[in-house]
Amino acid sequence: MAPRRKVTLTPICLLVYLWCFGVFMTLAWGSKARHFKWEVDYMYAAPDCLENVVMGINGQFPGPTIKARAGDTVVVHLTNKLHTEGVVIHWHGIRQLGTPWADGTASISQCAINPGETFVYRFKVDKAGTYFYHGHYGMQRSAGLYGLLIVDIEEGKKESFHYDGEFNLLLSDWWHKGAHEQEVDLSTNPMRWIGEPQSLLINGRGQYNCTLAGAHNSNGSSLPVCKFRGNEQCAPNILHVEPNKTYRLRVASATALASLNLAIGNHKMVMVEADGNYLQPFSVNDFDIYSGETYSVIFRTDQNLSNNYWISVGVRGREPKTPQGLAILHYKSTTTSKLPNLPPPKTPQWNDYTRSKSFTNKILAFSGSPRPPTNYSRRIFLLNTQNRINGYTKWAINNVSLNLPSTPYLGSIKHGLTSAFDQKSPPETFVNTYDITMPPSNPNATYGNGVYKLEFGKTIDVILQNANALNANVSEIHPWHLHGHDFWVLGYGEGKFSKKDEKKLNLQNPPLRNTVVIFPYGWTALRFVTDNPGVWAFHCHIEPHLHMGMGVVFASGVHLVGKIPDEALSCGLTGKLLRSNNHN
Amino acid sequence: MAPRRKVTLTPICLLVYLWCFGVFMTLAWGSKARHFKWEVDYMYAAPDCLENVVMGINGQFPGPTIKARAGDTVVVHLTNKLHTEGVVIHWHGIRQLGTPWADGTASISQCAINPGETFVYRFKVDKAGTYFYHGHYGMQRSAGLYGLLIVDIEEGKKESFHYDGEFNLLLSDWWHKGAHEQEVDLSTNPMRWIGEPQSLLINGRGQYNCTLAGAHNSNGSSLPVCKFRGNEQCAPNILHVEPNKTYRLRVASATALASLNLAIGNHKMVMVEADGNYLQPFSVNDFDIYSGETYSVIFRTDQNLSNNYWISVGVRGREPKTPQGLAILHYKSTTTSKLPNLPPPKTPQWNDYTRSKSFTNKILAFSGSPRPPTNYSRRIFLLNTQNRINGYTKWAINNVSLNLPSTPYLGSIKHGLTSAFDQKSPPETFVNTYDITMPPSNPNATYGNGVYKLEFGKTIDVILQNANALNANVSEIHPWHLHGHDFWVLGYGEGKFSKKDEKKLNLQNPPLRNTVVIFPYGWTALRFVTDNPGVWAFHCHIEPHLHMGMGVVFASGVHLVGKIPDEALSCGLTGKLLRSNNHN
Repeated sequence: MAPRRKVTLTPICLLVYLWCFGVFMTLAWGSKARHFKWEVDYMYAAPDCLENVVMGINGQFPGPTIKARAGDTVVVHLTNKLHTEGVVIHWHGIRQLGTPWADGTASISQCAINPGETFVYRFKVDKAGTYFYHGHYGMQRSAGLYGLLIVDIEEGKKESFHYDGEFNLLLSDWWHKGAHEQEVDLSTNPMRWIGEPQSLLINGRGQYNCTLAGAHNSNGSSLPVCKFRGNEQCAPNILHVEPNKTYRLRVASATALASLNLAIGNHKMVMVEADGNYLQPFSVNDFDIYSGETYSVIFRTDQNLSNNYWISVGVRGREPKTPQGLAILHYKSTTTSKLPNLPPPKTPQWNDYTRSKSFTNKILAFSGSPRPPTNYSRRIFLLNTQNRINGYTKWAINNVSLNLPSTPYLGSIKHGLTSAFDQKSPPETFVNTYDITMPPSNPNATYGNGVYKLEFGKTIDVILQNANALNANVSEIHPWHLHGHDFWVLGYGEGKFSKKDEKKLNLQNPPLRNTVVIFPYGWTALRFVTDNPGVWAFHCHIEPHLHMGMGVVFASGVHLVGKIPDEALSCGLTGKLLRSNNHN
Repeated sequence: MAPRRKVTLTPICLLVYLWCFGVFMTLAWGSKARHFKWEVDYMYAAPDCLENVVMGINGQFPGPTIKARAGDTVVVHLTNKLHTEGVVIHWHGIRQLGTPWADGTASISQCAINPGETFVYRFKVDKAGTYFYHGHYGMQRSAGLYGLLIVDIEEGKKESFHYDGEFNLLLSDWWHKGAHEQEVDLSTNPMRWIGEPQSLLINGRGQYNCTLAGAHNSNGSSLPVCKFRGNEQCAPNILHVEPNKTYRLRVASATALASLNLAIGNHKMVMVEADGNYLQPFSVNDFDIYSGETYSVIFRTDQNLSNNYWISVGVRGREPKTPQGLAILHYKSTTTSKLPNLPPPKTPQWNDYTRSKSFTNKILAFSGSPRPPTNYSRRIFLLNTQNRINGYTKWAINNVSLNLPSTPYLGSIKHGLTSAFDQKSPPETFVNTYDITMPPSNPNATYGNGVYKLEFGKTIDVILQNANALNANVSEIHPWHLHGHDFWVLGYGEGKFSKKDEKKLNLQNPPLRNTVVIFPYGWTALRFVTDNPGVWAFHCHIEPHLHMGMGVVFASGVHLVGKIPDEALSCGLTGKLLRSNNHN
């Protein structure tokens, strides 16, 4: 009998085992792979009521919003349907732990996807938060290649703040001149500046040549009131809310240029998240958001139930020549079509930097957040200057203007292809005597494509130092974005960073972020740990500035990087290397 | 002593040998390699006095003229300096004997060159004649990527006609809307037609919004007279001639759309060359030239020495909405600034097809030119129709609209990668009952990327059959261009080709060409021998028509093709194959 029992038991055990394993997978891991099939192509759209060519995904502009849960694996099969252009997509804020080839930066993490071909981005969204994605090749972000990536907290876990519902706002700025022509403008000698955007878009919708809030004449403009018959691509976003509830507003800025400020008429907001990291909550009437940043705020619908309210977005940091972007907060207790009876909140004075800095300084880590190491092992000073090379206007870091190589660094470093780029490390700092308050005495910079090779597992400090541009009395805002890592923002300061600033650095509760601003004539100090093997861009998130060379590249622990998919290596010298063993 | 003599003699022998070999090389081969280093990039230019973005080579628009001698090897190191786009260059009319990978057709002969990378085009210009080159990827020809390629007769050989000097005229048409946007327009549903060109360019120069010949009011227009201060990019071409001499005028049409007619005021011309092949000379007052064609004419400067004369280029075959393009024939016996006292030659009525056909029928081979084989081994009928696919407007051949694959055919066929494209051969003919005088009764076509596999060393006949487009009473001109071969034009006819047309075919002295037109509602018969191993495009040379699917692909003797450079195979499935043996 015994052998018989054994035989019958085995399949049952197997089933039980599989069931147990399945439950374990669901409960303990609770994560899943989320697959998306995307096609990138140009299409006609009217983001601001004026028809234009935009870069869309699956016929949508902005691209589809990805919703996932922390711990999930996102798998995007990206097919390039453009006719002659390559394409990549960067998953902004996702650290790509263990998958540096999926970071979606052409010339850095991968070869651009050729027309007609498909690349599979497969990466873990390890941390809940508000993220977005965008093109990272040429100026394809400016062409409209962007969308939201929302990562909810793990199943069973709870946010530290309560909310009854949530809305996502993807902010961008829009030019009527195409991105290709903008590229040529910026690369021409003399450089032709692209100017201020024609419109601000909220979730891809703005209004040009008319105003939603005409009755209030809030812009001081004589624009006619927009008239919508319904279904227009540029009809405003309406956020339908129940009274007396708490809502989370996730806001991401994919602007090419504009620094923005967002406010909701009559509603206070509480800042709770920045770049996928929790903040020490603080209350605001409005908040600044720079290109590359994301925030979550919570607000309570505690105002007069019979009114609707404007959500307004306006330009800061540059003299605004662009009307406010508007959306409507609609209380379900009233009619949708009722325009707010109060004017849209006014955007604070564009050059009131004291106000901007005051806001920025309030951004601190939620208690219990990871603290930075108390010591750094290497500190790099990066001087931001506007320069010239053979008459072409450029932006440079320590006098080197970034010129990306045709072979992506990740592959060339991993495979030891030293001719792929300049092996000399870029300058670690700038001359002590540099006067940041004046135009560069010698404006001539050089092109470079060297990388900062950072030892793995070390603590790195970066002091971003702002300076005067080519014209006197001009110093611009630059939001710097780091790939593959969050960093602690240790502090901001005026003038040139000096020894005395050392003690001002916040090592107690500095916020973790992936994007940080440097104010005019000021410095910003940040710290991060090289704990993610790969090659990572660190650059000004203003698209024209990056295009004009305003970035650097950090490489760290590349020898620890796993098998890079061949498709990421198909171009340039890595392509040649991979082909070289097979001559037919 | 003997060993010593030996030692002294050896170097002398070597020198003598080298000298003899050198002389032999020069005398017997007389050819050389001509190297060019080119960079393709966008730039600003004002081809028709209005500033626009154009695709230039080494900062020049049109690209530099290549001058070579028959038998030379042309070596072009082409570096792609575009930011996100691939690029290729097709050497129009060069047969690429033994070098099919250098034909410069993306998706057919090679992978597009990635931004930042260099591809070396190395090919023999085996036959004297007038050729040109242009982009063959997306609509990069429309963006301005073109230039002349002039191949002089072998050293020591003489043309059958005498001339004292020569001039080159590269004709093109120009739109103010960029090629990228044109591409989107054509690919949109409903399709947006690009319309007629704003200007006609002669060697990249035209005039918009003003006329050179205002005094004559030749265009019936009220345009102001152009005023030049000198050095304008759009100042007219001036051909400086000595009186009582004979000149050769080489003319190539790189137009995206326009069929043209060229005349020189008061001067008769003699047609002597078409597409690199000598013609039975005949005299004309003007001549038609379709996109993709080249001609040489000779003319004598035998007119009133104290005048200058207009060279005029106007639109035929479509209702012209574009002013004539003008250049000036300047007799050195008078002043350059003296405008011709006669109006520019009038372009013949656009729809006088009888006239066009009469001219075309005069084009016959120079006596002694190679004759076609008397029999064909395969005859393919290609019906040209305008169609719809899912509402998108397309052009189709035998109801199949060409949709190029991401892996170029040359590599995929050579390496047996059958999944790279549809292995089913496209239809050999169309239904007998098809009424070419009416819009297609079923306008729905299908996409296809199959190829006609032609047996090597065989004689192929192609009957190009024109038909009615989607709208009633519309049948357009299509100039068809074959890569890798010249073909004999056996004849043209009205209506649908039928058995009775067989005997009209000219097997005695049909001209050899690489481009041939089909007239509205007519047919054109051509014959060629599959003597050049490779994969070759055969397509309507109207850029928007090709973009909308109007082409087929011929493959022949691919097993005989030598080692394809890896760089031509780096994309798609061939790239994957070449990388697959080397996993690290």
